[in-house]
Amino acid sequence: MTARIQASSSVPVRQSSVRAHNLALVLQTVATSENPISRAFTAAATGLTRATVSALVDDLIAGGLLVERDPAPRSGAGRPAAGLALAPDGAYGLGLEINVDYLAACVVDLSGQVRHRVVTYADQRLGSWETALTRLAELAAFPGASGAALAVPGLVSADGIVRVAPNLGWQNIDAATVLSEALGMPVAVDNEANLAALSELRAAGGRPTFGYVSGEIGIGAGLVLDGALYRGVRGWSGEIGHLPVHPDGRACRCGARGCLEQYAGQEALLRAAGVAALADLPDDADLGEAGAALGIALAGVVNLLDLDTIVLGGIYGPLLPRLLPGIERELRQRVLTFDLAPITLRAAALGADAAMRGAAESVIRSVLDDPAAFLGRA
Amino acid sequence: MTARIQASSSVPVRQSSVRAHNLALVLQTVATSENPISRAFTAAATGLTRATVSALVDDLIAGGLLVERDPAPRSGAGRPAAGLALAPDGAYGLGLEINVDYLAACVVDLSGQVRHRVVTYADQRLGSWETALTRLAELAAFPGASGAALAVPGLVSADGIVRVAPNLGWQNIDAATVLSEALGMPVAVDNEANLAALSELRAAGGRPTFGYVSGEIGIGAGLVLDGALYRGVRGWSGEIGHLPVHPDGRACRCGARGCLEQYAGQEALLRAAGVAALADLPDDADLGEAGAALGIALAGVVNLLDLDTIVLGGIYGPLLPRLLPGIERELRQRVLTFDLAPITLRAAALGADAAMRGAAESVIRSVLDDPAAFLGRA
Repeated sequence: MTARIQASSSVPVRQSSVRAHNLALVLQTVATSENPISRAFTAAATGLTRATVSALVDDLIAGGLLVERDPAPRSGAGRPAAGLALAPDGAYGLGLEINVDYLAACVVDLSGQVRHRVVTYADQRLGSWETALTRLAELAAFPGASGAALAVPGLVSADGIVRVAPNLGWQNIDAATVLSEALGMPVAVDNEANLAALSELRAAGGRPTFGYVSGEIGIGAGLVLDGALYRGVRGWSGEIGHLPVHPDGRACRCGARGCLEQYAGQEALLRAAGVAALADLPDDADLGEAGAALGIALAGVVNLLDLDTIVLGGIYGPLLPRLLPGIERELRQRVLTFDLAPITLRAAALGADAAMRGAAESVIRSVLDDPAAFLGRA
Repeated sequence: MTARIQASSSVPVRQSSVRAHNLALVLQTVATSENPISRAFTAAATGLTRATVSALVDDLIAGGLLVERDPAPRSGAGRPAAGLALAPDGAYGLGLEINVDYLAACVVDLSGQVRHRVVTYADQRLGSWETALTRLAELAAFPGASGAALAVPGLVSADGIVRVAPNLGWQNIDAATVLSEALGMPVAVDNEANLAALSELRAAGGRPTFGYVSGEIGIGAGLVLDGALYRGVRGWSGEIGHLPVHPDGRACRCGARGCLEQYAGQEALLRAAGVAALADLPDDADLGEAGAALGIALAGVVNLLDLDTIVLGGIYGPLLPRLLPGIERELRQRVLTFDLAPITLRAAALGADAAMRGAAESVIRSVLDDPAAFLGRA
């Protein structure tokens, strides 16, 4: 068992980075264990020496990330070992979401458990962006979070500026700075489909490759390739709502014609069914056009990226059984490798909470990935 | 300066992997230097100690990958240091290509210089696959290559089996085994657009993100994301030729309708111009339909992947100036971020040789990335 260090890295391996690496390794070994595990077992599982593991464990306990619990009493010879576990209150991640018709916040702990969740419904297009962010900060007041992340339906720059959120009417809003000042902690900002995809990634485990498609008034996608979120050159990947599915077709708000959003977005679905709200959608509403449009777009995505799994979230989760026939007909006809390998289509595991859960988990993930940095800050 | 070791790796850092890492680091430092460099300079550039560098350099010289040359005489005080350089004959990579109307082979050395190149033109659809591979092996007889890679226009499994190469009429051909027995060396097999993209990646340097689009009778793409070729779940990414650009349009050989290949593939171009061969294409032939179809497909690719660069190769290289107006018109209309960030469209740097050069370079790349494995085999 040897570490795969990237040989193309342009820098040498130093002791401090070896310690940081092994600190993360020990923490993640405990985190992924179903039950508390001993220091000896941690050493065996990681391949590190017991002395090294003990020193690292002591640091993680002192930093509040691990706890060591007395073992359950048992019969038989020998002294049972104490068990290591993630500290229940070691670190909290605050997840925030702003969408067209609601604000939401949740807090998850180190183990990914939701400790707090609040959603308030109101049309965010009616007020200013300042009002929306102020309300969100009030909603999210939760002591002790290590950091926060905000999910928005739009294009976000690497510096946390929302460049365009068309359905909110936002342009160039520095949400990261405003919220981090209001909350007194670092706040990352990201596209909602990206964060929802990260949440699905965490739920799936391993190094999966899948596309997460989030149906709302707009349609976004988060691409998880080889176990990591693919963001694109500027962080603007996943604009699947503007894939041309009928290039000479309906005019789109974006200025083009025939975008997927005009055939499978929430407003197109409601228009086709002749109702004003999703709750009014009759059970026998014809979703054939939306399914076919999704199928055409997804066939392009699969041909291009060789995905084997598509996860459908947002409004598509509950509607999936009725969208599937249209999607599958197009995939069967258009995906070059359809007969060679299966494609799995499934509803998102976390439903409507996926984006804010993904936001909160991204904070926790950064602690688990780099506990040395977390301990250094504490 | 500390190494970025992936903290999520599930294994500890060991001495043997540190040595392998640092061996690659030293070799790559010499490889990327324009002029021979001293051991002392290598130590400074890598951050390793001089003693460590010297031991690693001795191993690389003994293994035939580096040479140490006497310095040029100079005036002034002090003894000038000897210079390290890649061994001119340290390792060779053999690049092979089979396409519809030619067979080709080339040999590149450690520094990427082409040492040998041969192309023979004949329609490969007229004979059997055995004949084609036997001829290719004869063509490629070159002593001393460390390994070979073959570029094919089709879907290749990870085990080197060509699952489908529609324009060659191949299905489930174990080209890797046949060629490695004929040549007496390991042979990797890969999609031609993937290998051409790798070649562009090497020419570009750094960690670019771009799509390489290869126009031939079929149209393939190689996707380089964050500096690495993205292959997809089964290695079948990049089937851009079957992106639906006019979903109810022309029937395609694949069974679907409206695939890009039917509007912008070589045969579609010739049909639109009413000529039988590319050489007969008049200078004023109207390539508007092909350009627009490419633009629609590429708009989808950019919206999905947030690429900032598209490289056009194969027949598109020389035709690019005439395709550009149609491509750009569609991109301007359909790419959501068109006004926020530029998209560069350029012809492939290596022209028609890109795929076989990429094949040869992939062999060399594996030596540079992991010299410890190469030395262990020698």
